[in-house]
Amino acid sequence: MSVQIPRGTQDILPGKVEYWQFVEQKAREICRAFNYKEIRTPMFEHTELFQRGVGETTDIVQKEMYTFKDRGDRSLTLRPEGTAAVGRSYVTHKMFGNPNQPTKLFYIGPMFRYERPQAGRFRQFVQFGVEALGVNDPAIDAEVLALLMNFYQSLGLKKLKLVVNSLGDTESRQAHRQALIDHFSPRIGEFCSDCQNRLHKNPLRILDCKKDRDHELMNTAPSILEYLNDYSKEYFESVQQYLTDLDIEYVVDPTLVRGLDYYNHTAFELMSEADGFGAITTLCGGGRYNGLIQEIGGPETPGIGFALSIERLLSALEAENIELPVEKGIDCYVVTLGDAAKAKSVALVNKLRKAGFVAEKDYQDKKVKGQFKSADRLEAKYVVVLGDDELAKGVANVKDMALGEQEEVKLEELVAYLENKA
Amino acid sequence: MSVQIPRGTQDILPGKVEYWQFVEQKAREICRAFNYKEIRTPMFEHTELFQRGVGETTDIVQKEMYTFKDRGDRSLTLRPEGTAAVGRSYVTHKMFGNPNQPTKLFYIGPMFRYERPQAGRFRQFVQFGVEALGVNDPAIDAEVLALLMNFYQSLGLKKLKLVVNSLGDTESRQAHRQALIDHFSPRIGEFCSDCQNRLHKNPLRILDCKKDRDHELMNTAPSILEYLNDYSKEYFESVQQYLTDLDIEYVVDPTLVRGLDYYNHTAFELMSEADGFGAITTLCGGGRYNGLIQEIGGPETPGIGFALSIERLLSALEAENIELPVEKGIDCYVVTLGDAAKAKSVALVNKLRKAGFVAEKDYQDKKVKGQFKSADRLEAKYVVVLGDDELAKGVANVKDMALGEQEEVKLEELVAYLENKA
Repeated sequence: MSVQIPRGTQDILPGKVEYWQFVEQKAREICRAFNYKEIRTPMFEHTELFQRGVGETTDIVQKEMYTFKDRGDRSLTLRPEGTAAVGRSYVTHKMFGNPNQPTKLFYIGPMFRYERPQAGRFRQFVQFGVEALGVNDPAIDAEVLALLMNFYQSLGLKKLKLVVNSLGDTESRQAHRQALIDHFSPRIGEFCSDCQNRLHKNPLRILDCKKDRDHELMNTAPSILEYLNDYSKEYFESVQQYLTDLDIEYVVDPTLVRGLDYYNHTAFELMSEADGFGAITTLCGGGRYNGLIQEIGGPETPGIGFALSIERLLSALEAENIELPVEKGIDCYVVTLGDAAKAKSVALVNKLRKAGFVAEKDYQDKKVKGQFKSADRLEAKYVVVLGDDELAKGVANVKDMALGEQEEVKLEELVAYLENKA
Repeated sequence: MSVQIPRGTQDILPGKVEYWQFVEQKAREICRAFNYKEIRTPMFEHTELFQRGVGETTDIVQKEMYTFKDRGDRSLTLRPEGTAAVGRSYVTHKMFGNPNQPTKLFYIGPMFRYERPQAGRFRQFVQFGVEALGVNDPAIDAEVLALLMNFYQSLGLKKLKLVVNSLGDTESRQAHRQALIDHFSPRIGEFCSDCQNRLHKNPLRILDCKKDRDHELMNTAPSILEYLNDYSKEYFESVQQYLTDLDIEYVVDPTLVRGLDYYNHTAFELMSEADGFGAITTLCGGGRYNGLIQEIGGPETPGIGFALSIERLLSALEAENIELPVEKGIDCYVVTLGDAAKAKSVALVNKLRKAGFVAEKDYQDKKVKGQFKSADRLEAKYVVVLGDDELAKGVANVKDMALGEQEEVKLEELVAYLENKA
């Protein structure tokens, strides 16, 4: 019996992997222009990091983590998201001491969540995320959003909707929290038991409840925007002014919230509005988390960032019928006839490859016709035909597959000939 | 208390990550020229895959795997190496059915082994590996070695030693195995208990024993090369002929063996001979494994490949004092003076970034002098100085930091001006 791939995971194979390479390369280029630098943290962390940094009460921590003991009896967890680990690294390496702040970082890599596998949702998936740590400035919030929009738009996506909100600072959040408790308390008995638990622990999360979403108190719940103090209001206005300066279209949605205490000020989501993209339209989420670094044991440090799934990005490209310009063909296929030519072809393809050409030959003892078929299948631009006779004369016949033209070329001039053609 | 990084793992941070990016990019380029395509398999597999594909008796499987149960009670293991997973994927996706063989694949990614942490050895490390599956042809063995040497040499490494050997086919291996049993049997009582166990299970592994390595029978043990049958001998000679054709220097070492039954024919290791590289000089190991795919449940399929650690490669570069040409500076830093200029600078850096320049500005309310210091620290090629007065006139002063020269440039012409300079 053959061994199966683990449930909920996928192999990314040639033919598809080129799209991954393309979008990741694009992410790297844009991060470079915005001066965000790559960071690579381990695939697993101490479980405690996510309990503190993602939050004990979240679905991720309660139901979806791959947690295990190592041989030294430490509880480790495959990272379910990137921000907590980047924050941990920021503290571990005392990056808050760098004279230039914010510390601007990005990551691209696998994340792990034990969710019910379904179309487009995997237990291992890849996230691209950025984090700007160390500065509380609306200009940084706008920069992070500019990077995000630049990334999606550079890939050709058009049907995008950016939703922003402000959760305010701690004072504003507390005022809103009290208002929510006052709003729901009198009729909390009409809500599900989860919501009853949430009322005093985390009333914001009531607004996310799927069971009770049609309850009439939901629509009339107090909006965070009504509870922003002056500083928070000014901060949010400044973010919006910058977005306007940057020609970034957005809508404000006061119901966009984050359940955890360390989120504040700017929160945002990017949606795809492409037809047939499916029920879950969120491509990316992010926001400011000025309380996180302290939560995981570092000094008080503001931060903002986003994370997006490459899988969902590729689905959005598909939904908008965007074909990325990935290279799939090869430059040159060497066809041989005769034993001497076959033996020589190993060194010949090597020479072409060292010169930077994508070159291939036959390893299956195919006849000339079969070798030409292989060259076709590989979409070779040129076919170099080498028989024992040509070899004896020190030449090869080079066929331009697009034009159908053929020329005799000296073997020692082959690289230069192809360089001239390119 | 802050959360620590897991023992034996490391963060790869800006300042170092550029070297990783550089060597990985080089690996990708060379694989592209050689027509090897990337494959990405999950970070974990069913534990059974490694028991079958790496071998029950290996240290890896017995002592070093991160094995855990998922919430569905399946035994999963973080991949300790890449070949078994690539083989599994070859079977899962029936790649043996592709008309063009071998199937040429490469991977770059983290591997996990629970080893005692020590200098340069990590529990999570990154391997670059290639696999060519589906063809038994000395030309492919030579191609894999050419790719390997090309990769290291393209990075500037010179103090390299390539060691090759042949383990022969199954018939040759069995003859050699019997010769080893006959050689050691009479005096096996003088060997350690591990070796006594190995005698009939896997006598080849006696040759690897660290405890008994000085026993006089070790030096006189029969060499595999004396037991190669005609086919195996011819195969090995052909590989060597190709290496000579390709100008690849190598030495034959008949003591280079592989303990597992599914290895055969070509085996190789690449060593660093740089001074002070340390006790373990192996940079890369590889070889032919014509029995692996069958072992994990697929059809009989020949294969060959190698794997190398990026960590050890970077150490070898250091040992040879090779500084990779990575880009660290930025193109342009925007210095502002006054509130209007500061507000405008957000859109200005965004415009520069969208044009492809690496641009940065201040987010810490630094004075002009402090902003210039930041520009220095970031190694900015140009500093764009924008005051409220300049802004009112629609200009900025652009300072070329290498030449020390300064020019007044219209804001609307800034991108074109910098493009001309570059």
